[in-house]
Amino acid sequence: MLYKEMTRAELLAEKEKYSHEYNLFKVKKLNLDMSRGKPSEGQIKETLGILNAMNPSTDYVTPSGINTLNYGCPDGLPECKELFSQILGVPAEKLYIGGNSSLALMFDYLMQCYAKGSSETSKPWIMQGEVYFLCPAPGYDRHFAIAEYLGIKMIPVKMTKDGPDMDQVEELVKNPAVKGMFCVPKYSNPTGVTYSDETVRRLASMKTADDFRIIWDNAYCIHDLFGREDKLLDMLSECEEAGNPSRAVEFASTSKISLSGAGVAVIAANEENLTYIKKRCARQTIGYDKANQYRHVLYYKDLAGVKKHMSILSDIISPRFEVVLNAFRAELSGLGIAEWSEPNGGYFINLNVMPGIATRVFGLCKEAGVKLTNVGATFPYGKDPDDTNIRIAPTFPSVEELSDATSLLIISIKLAALEKLLK
Amino acid sequence: MLYKEMTRAELLAEKEKYSHEYNLFKVKKLNLDMSRGKPSEGQIKETLGILNAMNPSTDYVTPSGINTLNYGCPDGLPECKELFSQILGVPAEKLYIGGNSSLALMFDYLMQCYAKGSSETSKPWIMQGEVYFLCPAPGYDRHFAIAEYLGIKMIPVKMTKDGPDMDQVEELVKNPAVKGMFCVPKYSNPTGVTYSDETVRRLASMKTADDFRIIWDNAYCIHDLFGREDKLLDMLSECEEAGNPSRAVEFASTSKISLSGAGVAVIAANEENLTYIKKRCARQTIGYDKANQYRHVLYYKDLAGVKKHMSILSDIISPRFEVVLNAFRAELSGLGIAEWSEPNGGYFINLNVMPGIATRVFGLCKEAGVKLTNVGATFPYGKDPDDTNIRIAPTFPSVEELSDATSLLIISIKLAALEKLLK
Repeated sequence: MLYKEMTRAELLAEKEKYSHEYNLFKVKKLNLDMSRGKPSEGQIKETLGILNAMNPSTDYVTPSGINTLNYGCPDGLPECKELFSQILGVPAEKLYIGGNSSLALMFDYLMQCYAKGSSETSKPWIMQGEVYFLCPAPGYDRHFAIAEYLGIKMIPVKMTKDGPDMDQVEELVKNPAVKGMFCVPKYSNPTGVTYSDETVRRLASMKTADDFRIIWDNAYCIHDLFGREDKLLDMLSECEEAGNPSRAVEFASTSKISLSGAGVAVIAANEENLTYIKKRCARQTIGYDKANQYRHVLYYKDLAGVKKHMSILSDIISPRFEVVLNAFRAELSGLGIAEWSEPNGGYFINLNVMPGIATRVFGLCKEAGVKLTNVGATFPYGKDPDDTNIRIAPTFPSVEELSDATSLLIISIKLAALEKLLK
Repeated sequence: MLYKEMTRAELLAEKEKYSHEYNLFKVKKLNLDMSRGKPSEGQIKETLGILNAMNPSTDYVTPSGINTLNYGCPDGLPECKELFSQILGVPAEKLYIGGNSSLALMFDYLMQCYAKGSSETSKPWIMQGEVYFLCPAPGYDRHFAIAEYLGIKMIPVKMTKDGPDMDQVEELVKNPAVKGMFCVPKYSNPTGVTYSDETVRRLASMKTADDFRIIWDNAYCIHDLFGREDKLLDMLSECEEAGNPSRAVEFASTSKISLSGAGVAVIAANEENLTYIKKRCARQTIGYDKANQYRHVLYYKDLAGVKKHMSILSDIISPRFEVVLNAFRAELSGLGIAEWSEPNGGYFINLNVMPGIATRVFGLCKEAGVKLTNVGATFPYGKDPDDTNIRIAPTFPSVEELSDATSLLIISIKLAALEKLLK
């Protein structure tokens, strides 16, 4: 029965019931964290073999003749490019291999556009007065933090089941002061949405300023769950076909394939962008850690090796998603107080509670020992206009912990909704 | 006998002799590289153990409780800070641990000053019109490349045996558009000079613009040779004592301690600078590779472990320096056509040939198969005003190869000098 159709007496009875249940939880003194998309210990244990992939008896010169332990090869090992080429479906010559952080590659790229311009011939963004970025929201807080740091004004764009609302996007990019857009196109953080073919094609072909750049953060490119798999078009090819070959720069990493603390990140870009990026990188570093690049090559060998590993990780992660989703389905369906995503991959479940109660839900959970992602974090400037969105990160806790935390979360949602309806 | 005191007949006889010797060398078809400060295979082989310092059976949680393989601990492992604290003689709380490249940490810091200002309250350099950096020259070409990329105008400063010419520096920094200075204060690249106490104190206490920053690139902080050791004052303390605590930011790495391709880099700075740097870094990355940081901690343990390792490396490097220096002493002394450094550490021998012939010497060597550092590379904008400076990087070739290359170099210097004197 929908909460909003209940009588005041019924609401009060429900509230008493869940207040009681909530207090029982408080006694348990939980101390759980569902706030960040962090791999669990189990995932790390399944990946320890990579630490030994290079050892003192390994030939540290690659088949292509690169000494992985000395200076040189600033763009990254050809063998590592080949591996990422298979993972991303992008030709190896379009790749640049970085350190362990794709976020750093994005930050550095945006800093480059900001201070030097997004191409050899365009003006630095900092020299163009007020500039804007489109931010599909809810979205990834660390993207928003970069834009805020650089003083780039953020314009939130509604997320639909097919990706960002393209009517809104196409309208907004008519303004030449709009310089770019953040996209997590597959198993989007946090909505779990994979951009439809139409969305990708409209992004590739819409009319924008020349120095407009899409940050194509393909963080969850092969991070499928439940044996299901979304398909995403290759953005670089689509941009090329649409006659806007320099529009998108793609980023990815193995942070959630191998090790979050010690992975390898990559840039994929067309020739113009890549040449311009490499020019800066050649000033920035003599080269990233090639030993770690080689560890990844030796450990995974090829796409089949990566996929096999991802299937092991999926067996660890999928049950965690199931615990949360099953509880939501059993306890929240039909009440009209919450909607949630059921993604085929990625690291998050997106939860939208009754508008106006997300902060209260967060507070109730916190008080009883469960840390959720800060409400608002998924929106530009940390402000969720409807106080409705909660990002659930189910990967880190154990299944048992998640079960407890989800029960508490559900009780908190009900309590907060009842409080609101009784006001 | 000084060449310039020879008669024309004597010069011609000398020239004939060395032309003949040069031609004998050309027949050998050498293919040697003395152009970059690269460790040799021997150095790498002595360091291979570090690859195994973390392996699947290693406890990957540090004594301080950090999981090295997951996200978190963005400033770097406390254990790694402790190791660098001992190496640099700087308290651990002043340190930030990065990836494998101190150049990247410098680039990112300069980019920060350029685009955001060198403190919370100061104007970005890019917004201040034309700005300048002092560049002790000969100096490190990669420093100059960063300044050039950012459009920061470089002013060369003469190097003396005690460091940069401080009279010149103190005069130049009176201009508030001078925003900083590059320094390699110990075993300077390429002069091998270690800054005297007086130089360090004058740098720390001179009057400059508030947003002036010294890039204190302590790349060769414990890179002693021949069992000798230069002493360098701690710049951060000197700046603090002089009442300019935010003036210098120090950088170092293990690129020439452990592995050039897979080392760990560090920033040392006072609280104001460090807070401001960390604020940016928190936007830039979730954290650098902690597995590699931990490898270094486990492999070296402490300063004694590092020093023991550096002494092994010195046994490999010192003989290479000796080969070159002995040949110079035997073949170039008393001719008045070349002067060279005899450093107590670092990676370079600095050679100044008769003004106007360095480019010719480079060409002669190249033609006979020996690659020297590009003439001019050691000066801002790649321009050596006197065409005199040649940076010798003796670490990479074998002792035998170096012996050949040095013989060729000496012959080339003599030939070029004779050509010039005979003009």
